Amino acid sequence: MKYFTEENSVEAVNARMGENINPRLATLMTRLVAHLHAFAKEVELSQEEWECGIEFLTRTGQICSPERQEFILLSDTLGLSMLVDQINNRRPAGATENTVFGPFHVVGAPIRKMGDAISLDGKGEICLYEGRILDLQGNPIEGAHIDVWSDNAEGFYDVQQIGIQPRWNNRGVFVTGADGEYQFVGIKPVSYPIPNDGPVGRLLECLERHPFRPAHMHYLITAQGYQKLVTHTFVAADDYLDSDAVFGVKETLIASFEQVDGGNTLWRSQFDFVLSPI
Amino acid sequence: MKYFTEENSVEAVNARMGENINPRLATLMTRLVAHLHAFAKEVELSQEEWECGIEFLTRTGQICSPERQEFILLSDTLGLSMLVDQINNRRPAGATENTVFGPFHVVGAPIRKMGDAISLDGKGEICLYEGRILDLQGNPIEGAHIDVWSDNAEGFYDVQQIGIQPRWNNRGVFVTGADGEYQFVGIKPVSYPIPNDGPVGRLLECLERHPFRPAHMHYLITAQGYQKLVTHTFVAADDYLDSDAVFGVKETLIASFEQVDGGNTLWRSQFDFVLSPI
Ligand SMILES: [Fe+2]
Ligand SMILES: [Fe+2]
Repeated sequence: MKYFTEENSVEAVNARMGENINPRLATLMTRLVAHLHAFAKEVELSQEEWECGIEFLTRTGQICSPERQEFILLSDTLGLSMLVDQINNRRPAGATENTVFGPFHVVGAPIRKMGDAISLDGKGEICLYEGRILDLQGNPIEGAHIDVWSDNAEGFYDVQQIGIQPRWNNRGVFVTGADGEYQFVGIKPVSYPIPNDGPVGRLLECLERHPFRPAHMHYLITAQGYQKLVTHTFVAADDYLDSDAVFGVKETLIASFEQVDGGNTLWRSQFDFVLSPI
Repeated sequence: MKYFTEENSVEAVNARMGENINPRLATLMTRLVAHLHAFAKEVELSQEEWECGIEFLTRTGQICSPERQEFILLSDTLGLSMLVDQINNRRPAGATENTVFGPFHVVGAPIRKMGDAISLDGKGEICLYEGRILDLQGNPIEGAHIDVWSDNAEGFYDVQQIGIQPRWNNRGVFVTGADGEYQFVGIKPVSYPIPNDGPVGRLLECLERHPFRPAHMHYLITAQGYQKLVTHTFVAADDYLDSDAVFGVKETLIASFEQVDGGNTLWRSQFDFVLSPI
């Protein structure tokens, strides 16, 4: 085992780690090297394929900027982001499931009065969102902060169109009272493509995959004594529900959107969120 | 299997690939996703660790430039480059083994007269390199091109010190005659660190690994009808022979360097290279 060979490659690399390194880092690197080498051996990776991989990773890193994170996009489209989210947010039956956070949350959205509108640009089909924040026993949770955000009718979040959309368009924070109820007026969100003009978009093309996410409303719900809930509700019957580019859909997160006759909203979506205790 | 779960994650992602995609790409991506997810599940990757990984890959991409390839460095230090080299260059017993190409080869080095010097800066301990290019039966190969390169006495290749070292310092191409013999005068190369001021250097530090490569002379040997041979000879007794930062050492590539009394060289290294037919 003194020198590297095809057979002992994993052991040869992992044996090189020092004895006093962080034990968690040792575990992570040991398993990473094992899987990396197993992959190369299984597929008998060619020199050209290796070069192609190096080039892909390089281009992916080089397109990253303060406004764009192509490696997260890569992780998203390979299902890794969803998997990590799931591993770290296993919940008891009955609790609302997590899904990916996404890149478009903004800290500091205005706290709005229960029932207020978050859609400020006058575009899109108006929708009343309502429901309750409950504990696992079905009791209402008071003082829960419900941070919501969605795209506008053209499929863009406000931060993607600074100077075009009103500030905090389709965003707001609502705080529940003793009844645990929430209500706000937004729009029925629309499906949108993830950025697909970079290396990840090109990869999706080569895999014959479209870049769309099914329409969804984002929620970040926090309450004292409960686990943070990061999730979406998905618009039932969306064309992309079965093929979310980032694999974010869970059956339990699909919400009904009913058409409403009369009144000042056209749609209504009722959804109760159940928080798990810490 | 409609929606992504922790259990079906690999199948959910791989089922999304189109049916008419390049079959080799399908194989590569299928296995890549399987190993990526297996890794995350085995170690129960935390959100923070995932973020740390994203950040590491991003920094690795961003430090890349026409002069620097940090992803290749990462591949090298994880033993992946050596593994791919080995998978693609399995040879019959008796043939000289391959090792990593490295980033410092330059196309177009001058063809020199057999026996000439490649070391042009007057630095270092002079060494006579000699031996033969043979086929598997031990017959000399005529017309073999032997492209050699090494660092100088300070541990730098000429391309790392443009304007400081003479052009083509410690480089040259030699062509064998009917006897298959070669001879040239270089220096006894010295061990040198791979670039360690970037993310990969930081990783090595965290793993308590040094960045040094044991001293070596690079060879790229080509001859009509034979497989291209990319290899090094390593200076026997080098301090880093057992801990090459890129795992390039193979037992059969360790060459003796004998001290020579008198004459105009101080060292002599004899090594025969055996080429495999195509
Ligand atoms: Fe979104
Ligand atoms: Fe080298």
